Amino acid sequence: MSRLVMKFGGTSVADLDHIRNVAEHVKREVEAGHHCAVIVSAMAGQTNQLIAWTDEAGRCHDQAEYDSVVASGEQVTSGLLALTLQSMGLKARSWLGWQIPVKTDGAHGRARITDIPADNLMDSLESGEIGIIAGFQGIGPDNRITTLGRGGSDTSAVAIAAAIAADRCDIYTDVDGVYTTDPRIVPQAQRLGKVSYEEMLEMASQGAKVLQTRSVELAMVKKVRLLVRSSFQKPENSPPFGDDTAQTPGTLVCDEDEILEQQIVSGIAYAKDEAKVTVLKVADKPGVAARIFGPLADANINVDMIVQNVSDDGRYTDLTFTVPKDDLDKAMQVVEAAKESINYSDLRGSTDVVKVSVIGIGMRSHAGVAAEMFKAISEQGINIQAISTSEIKISILIDAKYTELAVRTLHTLYDLDAA
Amino acid sequence: MSRLVMKFGGTSVADLDHIRNVAEHVKREVEAGHHCAVIVSAMAGQTNQLIAWTDEAGRCHDQAEYDSVVASGEQVTSGLLALTLQSMGLKARSWLGWQIPVKTDGAHGRARITDIPADNLMDSLESGEIGIIAGFQGIGPDNRITTLGRGGSDTSAVAIAAAIAADRCDIYTDVDGVYTTDPRIVPQAQRLGKVSYEEMLEMASQGAKVLQTRSVELAMVKKVRLLVRSSFQKPENSPPFGDDTAQTPGTLVCDEDEILEQQIVSGIAYAKDEAKVTVLKVADKPGVAARIFGPLADANINVDMIVQNVSDDGRYTDLTFTVPKDDLDKAMQVVEAAKESINYSDLRGSTDVVKVSVIGIGMRSHAGVAAEMFKAISEQGINIQAISTSEIKISILIDAKYTELAVRTLHTLYDLDAA
Repeated sequence: MSRLVMKFGGTSVADLDHIRNVAEHVKREVEAGHHCAVIVSAMAGQTNQLIAWTDEAGRCHDQAEYDSVVASGEQVTSGLLALTLQSMGLKARSWLGWQIPVKTDGAHGRARITDIPADNLMDSLESGEIGIIAGFQGIGPDNRITTLGRGGSDTSAVAIAAAIAADRCDIYTDVDGVYTTDPRIVPQAQRLGKVSYEEMLEMASQGAKVLQTRSVELAMVKKVRLLVRSSFQKPENSPPFGDDTAQTPGTLVCDEDEILEQQIVSGIAYAKDEAKVTVLKVADKPGVAARIFGPLADANINVDMIVQNVSDDGRYTDLTFTVPKDDLDKAMQVVEAAKESINYSDLRGSTDVVKVSVIGIGMRSHAGVAAEMFKAISEQGINIQAISTSEIKISILIDAKYTELAVRTLHTLYDLDAA
Repeated sequence: MSRLVMKFGGTSVADLDHIRNVAEHVKREVEAGHHCAVIVSAMAGQTNQLIAWTDEAGRCHDQAEYDSVVASGEQVTSGLLALTLQSMGLKARSWLGWQIPVKTDGAHGRARITDIPADNLMDSLESGEIGIIAGFQGIGPDNRITTLGRGGSDTSAVAIAAAIAADRCDIYTDVDGVYTTDPRIVPQAQRLGKVSYEEMLEMASQGAKVLQTRSVELAMVKKVRLLVRSSFQKPENSPPFGDDTAQTPGTLVCDEDEILEQQIVSGIAYAKDEAKVTVLKVADKPGVAARIFGPLADANINVDMIVQNVSDDGRYTDLTFTVPKDDLDKAMQVVEAAKESINYSDLRGSTDVVKVSVIGIGMRSHAGVAAEMFKAISEQGINIQAISTSEIKISILIDAKYTELAVRTLHTLYDLDAA
């Protein structure tokens, strides 16, 4: 008998009609013979209402109180889903974070899970009871409710899946999987059947918003197989776990060993949340970079891409780097404050850039991907302003107006277009 | 340093403006040097919304799930009030039922408090932290949330007051105290300065809806002094606990020993929630009453007043009794089903009656109250259909249309009208 974790986000449980739809998905898996633990978010809109109230109550939040108020949203959904399943004749009960318990480090508002002693939950599941677990919440060493911060419910789901050694963790969302690129830009984008944790991490952090980075990291460490699938697909048309006659719905995020035919490139991502800073005419000699990036690091600003131009005369050079768009003003101030020590002629900032990335685990064993990429981009008359690479990713910074053209060009180049 | 419990109901915390008003009341007491534990209900309307959702989710409630969903309302208010107090520069933290813990018997939906180990709460209060406690909720032996049923937050307040040996438990509500009778009927009704637990119990169960009977019973047993007062009175105009220069606001519900000048009659109550059943022409011999009231007791119907008419010929008599209005149909069916064993000619039910009660602890040592009462009522041409008495109460059943006339007449008779 398999153990399955199913996670439903806020739009999937927005009201009682949606909750009934979720219950049908759960029923399908239970009837297929699986033990199910279901993680739920708050009903869409509820969390925002609760946060608005805490804002109104006290501008400088005590995060412990914030957690107690906001966690009530998931508490409500878990009870309502349990009641709905019961009214369908199934055995179900709700579990709050402190009841399991989901132990955390007690950092209110952004707690990290430290341990989930799942004996009681396991006993309940083994007895045939469906466990409905309030996501996003845990308990701190101070015996108070903690919340896990952004993407918390995905993380709850993965952590519970690891704690009960689930065979799979299904993340139900409003899209039916992970695509080779954004289908709004490339209509021929294809759903990936499988994608490795590493690739998914690059895609998530590069702007594909399906799964929170944090939950993918945890899944990778704990070897939890994630299936990203749609809660809006009709429950009766979705195959249950273990149905080998049907095509697996969604995208399986798994260990690369499970992916037999690794593509060289599995996806094209783009991110518009970076800004470019150019420092003009700095001395081309050792120590200059440290004088620029030291103060930025001190100010907690993440620098992503860095390019140093070749200098004409060996005396001066231009230095370009990227920072998160939200940090641009701060970064400019920091560099300006250090002008004397750096010694440059001019400083320019721009938000009119996009980072386009080519991601694929097959790159590791395949040379020439970068060269092909740069050639195809330049053939379109697009200037590459900066480059950064990892083992399984190549990113370029270009003018934002070329976003669609670049993504389409690369999607075709690497044979990702659907037939 | 005194310990004070303050309880605020749903209308007193209806929104953030109201919560700020509550916070001002709390601040006043803290600044007067008291350690405060504050019990809050859910924001008005929230509980109804949550109940409606549970109704929609599953008609046959699992009470454990119902409790988990509904208790979230008080969880939200407790956090918001704590945040509001913090934003005013005060130290405060919220406590949920399971955190204190408020231990209950686990009867979900109508749990009874079994124990409140208040050491942690006490430590927090002693450190100068205001404790904001979610009312209406506790935890069962199964480690799940329980709710206390109707009037639960009043009961929470009294139980917490007993657990921390509070000097007083202030119940803030939308009226400024307990009156000699309903001011809507008698504008000259006066607020009582003090009233004994016994009198308050009679008033509560007789239809004065200020305090839930259950909380008064608990206060009597635990000797908790209750002050019924208004949350809508401006905080700055309300004297804090211990201010001997000011008139005590509200009505103090206390042990009769604390009431120096005991009134013979302290209030007139009326209740419209009873119905009358008359069984005509039953045999006037031993055993008949048992054959009627036995089946009613078996059907869990509370019979309140009973009158047996004097029979004309010693052979037959008419029997009249009252039951809760909601149980009238059931009572009629029960008596009809037992017609053969009882043997009567006819059965009549009526909801067109009211029970008017005269309540006063001084009655114990004062004869003649009943006689005066019956005389005054009959002088108004009102027929008394049934009578019941206790040590401190005389109740009469009359035609509902005479409610106002009877209440006014008795209020004047016992000198309760304000000068």
